[in-house]
Amino acid sequence: MPSLREASPELQEAMDRILNDVNKTISRLLPETDLAENKLFTAMRHGVLNGGKRLRPFLLIHSALLFNVDEERARRVAAALELMHCYSLIHDDLPAMDNADFRRGEPSVHRKFDEATAILAGDALQALAFEILASEETHADPRVRVELVTALARASGGHGLCGGQMLDLLGETEEFDVGTISRMQRMKTGMLIAFACEAGAILGKTDEARRRALRNYAFDLGMAFQVTDDILDVEADPKAMGKPANQDEAAGKSTFVTTLGKEQAKTRASMLVEQAVRHLHCFDESRVKMLKEIAYYVLERRA
Amino acid sequence: MPSLREASPELQEAMDRILNDVNKTISRLLPETDLAENKLFTAMRHGVLNGGKRLRPFLLIHSALLFNVDEERARRVAAALELMHCYSLIHDDLPAMDNADFRRGEPSVHRKFDEATAILAGDALQALAFEILASEETHADPRVRVELVTALARASGGHGLCGGQMLDLLGETEEFDVGTISRMQRMKTGMLIAFACEAGAILGKTDEARRRALRNYAFDLGMAFQVTDDILDVEADPKAMGKPANQDEAAGKSTFVTTLGKEQAKTRASMLVEQAVRHLHCFDESRVKMLKEIAYYVLERRA
Repeated sequence: MPSLREASPELQEAMDRILNDVNKTISRLLPETDLAENKLFTAMRHGVLNGGKRLRPFLLIHSALLFNVDEERARRVAAALELMHCYSLIHDDLPAMDNADFRRGEPSVHRKFDEATAILAGDALQALAFEILASEETHADPRVRVELVTALARASGGHGLCGGQMLDLLGETEEFDVGTISRMQRMKTGMLIAFACEAGAILGKTDEARRRALRNYAFDLGMAFQVTDDILDVEADPKAMGKPANQDEAAGKSTFVTTLGKEQAKTRASMLVEQAVRHLHCFDESRVKMLKEIAYYVLERRA
Repeated sequence: MPSLREASPELQEAMDRILNDVNKTISRLLPETDLAENKLFTAMRHGVLNGGKRLRPFLLIHSALLFNVDEERARRVAAALELMHCYSLIHDDLPAMDNADFRRGEPSVHRKFDEATAILAGDALQALAFEILASEETHADPRVRVELVTALARASGGHGLCGGQMLDLLGETEEFDVGTISRMQRMKTGMLIAFACEAGAILGKTDEARRRALRNYAFDLGMAFQVTDDILDVEADPKAMGKPANQDEAAGKSTFVTTLGKEQAKTRASMLVEQAVRHLHCFDESRVKMLKEIAYYVLERRA
């Protein structure tokens, strides 16, 4: 479990609640079966329900609450997003990619099962994410559902997550400048985090200005998250992280820390969080409290 | 290229036309880029545009034409379906799965590029398939689009294609009876073929009876296709197939041929095609000519 000592009691409570609620929703949407191929579903569940802070669901639900969206609907979209995020982690951990034996302190899916099962589990999680978004239970208006499908598909495809992963792999043999690293991280993590906040706006059928404000908040927050991730890779306690330290450097990857140095990376992370929070000015102060607090938490987290 | 000598000139012409049209649509929807990560798009294109008979697009477009659906729209859905089919082939060929060096006479994606790129190319193709289905250009009615997304997600997820693949892998160490093989093949190939025909019905907003007729036609045809595939694995010319012979037996897989024997498998394929064609009785004879002909072609093909 990550150390959460920097979170205020109120933020901690809100995070815990969403974590529990979303895990229940995921478990319900992805049950064990008594089918001969149940190994696939066990592997999918292992890849999704083995911990995780549920940062994206938190952002999604708190963005949706700004527009008084029914929380059960927001939770379904949050579950779909988390399935997508976790499928990418399962594939990322494969021997041909990052070759990671552990994830969140547990054996990665291909270590607990086998490579073929891990590939299929990721594939099936992606399909399930879209199935959930397209379901009538997610929103009564089919226009909202296709908009969610479109946004998630773009955020996760060749011009989003997968493209960012490709760049990341190319970065093992090419040296990237800070501009390319930023672009890579925007695709690799920024776009799914932006989807989290935009999905709230889509569910709430809000205007373009508010949607853009949330998107910009999310991109800055996502980048701050990635910069602190790079810092944590070199300085965090491996036990708190649930994975070994210095994995990026060992893989010869260009990161914000290898490129900017640790101190400048920390300054950049702080600036990004300040910038993220400023995008929320168009909302009522009292309603964006949690979105602000989570931004500072991302900066101060220890795992 | 597969030998098509059994196809009538009219069927051959219809197949060629759809193959060309759908390839153009795919090429347009999946262009090369000048981005640093273009390797991903080159790999995706290699996995999709390296041949293939485009049987699923043929079924989809001819089903859609029964209801006078605009062909350009049907082609977009056919392209999305083919992206999905080809992503599954790319992942299927990976060393951890079938470990196939060749596909359609060309190096498989992980052989031409590398494993990590092949995994990502498959992942990005799946996302693109859903993005295409959700686009307004595919159909003006968002209800039709979410229905297409739902149907494709179900056909390709844990209770469809991916579940079938899982069973297939389990079949390397467990011996399956003919019932389990049928269920596996229904999931592995039947459901995407059924999607092809149902998508025509969805686009055409037809009634449940016609939709069911097309689904049943597709399931019988898909099963006949798989039985002949198992027969071709043991008796076809490897050059015409573009891959080595006896791959299934070498992998210790249970197939219709290993379970029923070759002669009984042939009888079963014929019966299935007759049964498939009978489901089309509710349509005007003159309009289902191509759907009937392709069913007999599936039976008689040599590759």
